[in-house]
Amino acid sequence: MAFEEIDVVRVRGGRPGHAVDRVAVEEPLEVRVQGQPFAVIMRTPGADRELAAGFLFAERILRSADEIGTIAHCRDTTDGEAPLENVVNVTLARALDAGFDRAMAERRNVVANASCGVCGRLTIESLRADLSPLLPGFTVPASLVSVLPERLRTAQAVFDATGGLHAAGLFDRDGTLVTSAEDVGRHNAVDKVVGRMLMREAVPLGEHTLFVSGRSSFEIVQKAWCAGIPIVASVSAPSSLAVALARDAGMTLVGFVRDGGFNIYTHSERITHNDQR
Amino acid sequence: MAFEEIDVVRVRGGRPGHAVDRVAVEEPLEVRVQGQPFAVIMRTPGADRELAAGFLFAERILRSADEIGTIAHCRDTTDGEAPLENVVNVTLARALDAGFDRAMAERRNVVANASCGVCGRLTIESLRADLSPLLPGFTVPASLVSVLPERLRTAQAVFDATGGLHAAGLFDRDGTLVTSAEDVGRHNAVDKVVGRMLMREAVPLGEHTLFVSGRSSFEIVQKAWCAGIPIVASVSAPSSLAVALARDAGMTLVGFVRDGGFNIYTHSERITHNDQR
Repeated sequence: MAFEEIDVVRVRGGRPGHAVDRVAVEEPLEVRVQGQPFAVIMRTPGADRELAAGFLFAERILRSADEIGTIAHCRDTTDGEAPLENVVNVTLARALDAGFDRAMAERRNVVANASCGVCGRLTIESLRADLSPLLPGFTVPASLVSVLPERLRTAQAVFDATGGLHAAGLFDRDGTLVTSAEDVGRHNAVDKVVGRMLMREAVPLGEHTLFVSGRSSFEIVQKAWCAGIPIVASVSAPSSLAVALARDAGMTLVGFVRDGGFNIYTHSERITHNDQR
Repeated sequence: MAFEEIDVVRVRGGRPGHAVDRVAVEEPLEVRVQGQPFAVIMRTPGADRELAAGFLFAERILRSADEIGTIAHCRDTTDGEAPLENVVNVTLARALDAGFDRAMAERRNVVANASCGVCGRLTIESLRADLSPLLPGFTVPASLVSVLPERLRTAQAVFDATGGLHAAGLFDRDGTLVTSAEDVGRHNAVDKVVGRMLMREAVPLGEHTLFVSGRSSFEIVQKAWCAGIPIVASVSAPSSLAVALARDAGMTLVGFVRDGGFNIYTHSERITHNDQR
């Protein structure tokens, strides 16, 4: 379940009363690679396999759908093989190589990060060295950007119930929602979306727009770049590092999509106006 | 600077135009302990020393103000001792003990965490073992809770300029704002506030209310508990794990403080109504 019902005291007009509220579920997910613990992610349960795939893809452990062997919840061997709801193991179809060992070692050596788990390791410089700039060519009309929030909201069952979940939606060339995900962490919602597309062997996503609730951080742009997504838009503000990375990635970064308007922070040439398309 | 000015294309009413927008600065801060790299935090520059102090306090590396030796930006010895804006070193007044070595080893061994850097290591169980439940006694009238958002907003210079920063404010018994901080990460804003009070030797904060913009996660409640704060309130929803931890901590957790009303999720006895106080 993505939410829990909780008895609360609801204060309205200065008066307390009893009520039941729904809160978004937040639980740790341990991601293992070939049985080795790799990361613990605070997430909202649901689409755990997609989350693990998308997370490892953004971490550059998984480089393509071909490399996925199996992704499955682990089983508790002490208790009749009951599934461990909060532990997922990913096996790789390729042999572990020096690059993997290095990633594991780096992960252990540097940082448990207070905000994202990638920075300090995947710097802009190392991303630039690793990823190609996104190609120009794909465009979307401004009128379509404006309706993305409404289209995502329509798909967001749980958000309405708890007010506590972020959402990410992937839209195709025509502005049709291809898939969406919700999570207490915005970056997890993006990992779930990308992971699902990776498992469908549909990455890179060169003719898609990613729309996220809330703000755009460095990490959101980094994950979108890994997935080859040329346009990222959000309801709220981007950070300075998100703008800098999007500029380098050749990505169109759009913010404050609300009330029929928006701001384009980088590579505005992908957004067409009136009959320019 | 907490924000950068960026040239953007602003689309309004279907028409593109040029404009200058301010975006919140996001940069990595490396926190060293006794010269050893301990963590990298994506943060908004400003109050870096407070952030480092509050972060290490929540990590239980610093256990009291007495243990702080020095907190200073490192200097670049290759370049005429210029300060390294994104590296802070904290020295401890006590000798490093086995507990510290264990914390460093755990930090390296487990998880670079995708959302918070604490979970999977500081579980609810280990927090319970380490921290005492908050004492009852301190109360706040409901009418005062309702005005916290407005009082914090008044202090929030940068938020208004960028729309991209979270804020945390600490209020005393009378509802006066004691200190506040802003950051791209809500947890960083809390670390800055707690770190500042720690450096003033004013922790534990047994007669204070912490108010945060946005949502309450597990991590916010954990940091408040470490600082002995009995009431935590936020503009938006708490997560299930935040509620569970607040219940165990003996903490009053309030959410959805907006439009004159709010919900009390745990330990509602600290909020008084009408003349009950």
